[in-house]
Amino acid sequence: MKKCTIFYVSDGTAITAETVGHSLISQFRDIKFKQIRIPFIDSIEKAQDAAQQIGSAKGDYQTLVINTVVDIELRIIIHSGGGLKLDPFNRLLREIEDNLEIKRSPVVGRAHGVVDSKAYTARIDATNYALLNDDGVSVDYDDADLILLGVSRSGKTPTCLYLALQYGVKAANYPLTEEDLDRLKIPGNILKHKEKVYGLTIDPFRLSQIRAERRAGTQYSNQRQCQREVSDAESMFLRNGIQFLSTTDTSIEEISGKILVALNLNNRLH
Amino acid sequence: MKKCTIFYVSDGTAITAETVGHSLISQFRDIKFKQIRIPFIDSIEKAQDAAQQIGSAKGDYQTLVINTVVDIELRIIIHSGGGLKLDPFNRLLREIEDNLEIKRSPVVGRAHGVVDSKAYTARIDATNYALLNDDGVSVDYDDADLILLGVSRSGKTPTCLYLALQYGVKAANYPLTEEDLDRLKIPGNILKHKEKVYGLTIDPFRLSQIRAERRAGTQYSNQRQCQREVSDAESMFLRNGIQFLSTTDTSIEEISGKILVALNLNNRLH
Repeated sequence: MKKCTIFYVSDGTAITAETVGHSLISQFRDIKFKQIRIPFIDSIEKAQDAAQQIGSAKGDYQTLVINTVVDIELRIIIHSGGGLKLDPFNRLLREIEDNLEIKRSPVVGRAHGVVDSKAYTARIDATNYALLNDDGVSVDYDDADLILLGVSRSGKTPTCLYLALQYGVKAANYPLTEEDLDRLKIPGNILKHKEKVYGLTIDPFRLSQIRAERRAGTQYSNQRQCQREVSDAESMFLRNGIQFLSTTDTSIEEISGKILVALNLNNRLH
Repeated sequence: MKKCTIFYVSDGTAITAETVGHSLISQFRDIKFKQIRIPFIDSIEKAQDAAQQIGSAKGDYQTLVINTVVDIELRIIIHSGGGLKLDPFNRLLREIEDNLEIKRSPVVGRAHGVVDSKAYTARIDATNYALLNDDGVSVDYDDADLILLGVSRSGKTPTCLYLALQYGVKAANYPLTEEDLDRLKIPGNILKHKEKVYGLTIDPFRLSQIRAERRAGTQYSNQRQCQREVSDAESMFLRNGIQFLSTTDTSIEEISGKILVALNLNNRLH
């Protein structure tokens, strides 16, 4: 497989440059990309260092450079290192200025630097909420924006934490117990909030693997046991009209996005 | 303040479109933007619905539409709703194709949909690690990529979780105790990993507010107490040559990014 190096250079966290880069390189499946992040470029010395790194990068193609640094002097230094200069914003900003007849007021490192304190507090509060309402310890779900159900190790906790940190959504989770699964019944304190309940399922074979990493050779990680639990959980979701999805081949981002759509939570955010 | 509506339309999670949008609108501080996310547009019906939402949006300016949907038919339908069409990728993809003399192989919703299972497992493992090694319960930090130190409520846990979910970095955290602070000494099991230790500090007044939300009127949230703890923690960092930063006005993204740079962890990722 041929190789190509791509740099994400930014005066802030480089998250935006990296996100754009991921989208771009995902469209070229026949090339192996080496990704290098160079954040917080806010001085001539750092820009020179970045240029040097870019200049010495190796690959079978021209090196790609996604550069979101705002300061023009620093931009010029960075691009002295060579590579194909990819700027995702300048043209879009000009289009907005021209069409809306407004002028930008450029500020370095704004996108992820300056804190929008209301949104920030919401994210921290939601993270604390997720930690406090993890794994069925809650009895009161009144404050929850959503409640995730699923068998042990089906992906509930990482999803709740991602929803909290990324979107400020208060997500509780409840692991279905043997007793719940035997009775095919959802506990009453959760069922009364049915409009905000969502289910996670998972391929039983994968579940068995995941559980074996924790407790190999036990009933907990036994494949038949996993099959039975997953099948009972899915029956329970269907019987109670709970929407659910499989986490097996799905990224946390996509699981989270689909849950927000399903529970109609996209409009309430930000 | 004048208002403008901006849509993030995608066949995937819309995270990329939204990230680009945040960067763009952060450059126009005099406008209040209403942001609407429309993810998972993968059918004619959903595209028509998106077009209708775009068409009925209100604002003092032309509506902005960041559209990362790959399918051309769906794109046309979406843009029939009007608004200023902003495509962050098409031109960049063409530049890459032209300069590298390669052809893209477009796939719908790739960037955050398809799971890179090695990176995915690393993120889940790191999240579990952060949860298990939260608040000083560890005695063994051999597996940690980094160890965050700070007084209670200085932002350690959300930062560790973000580093895990976003970057697959194993971050443990240790809350400095009264005893540690009195002695200005870092516990031995942490100090032996000094090269991966990083400190968080916070404005004492803000700390007092945060603590009061949990336990108002206590010694724990008392402002003098907070001042003393923060001042002791900072002395301890300085005396032991531990790098640190203040979380007071800093987003989780920026805190995390700066820690990765300081501990030289950027090269090890992905």
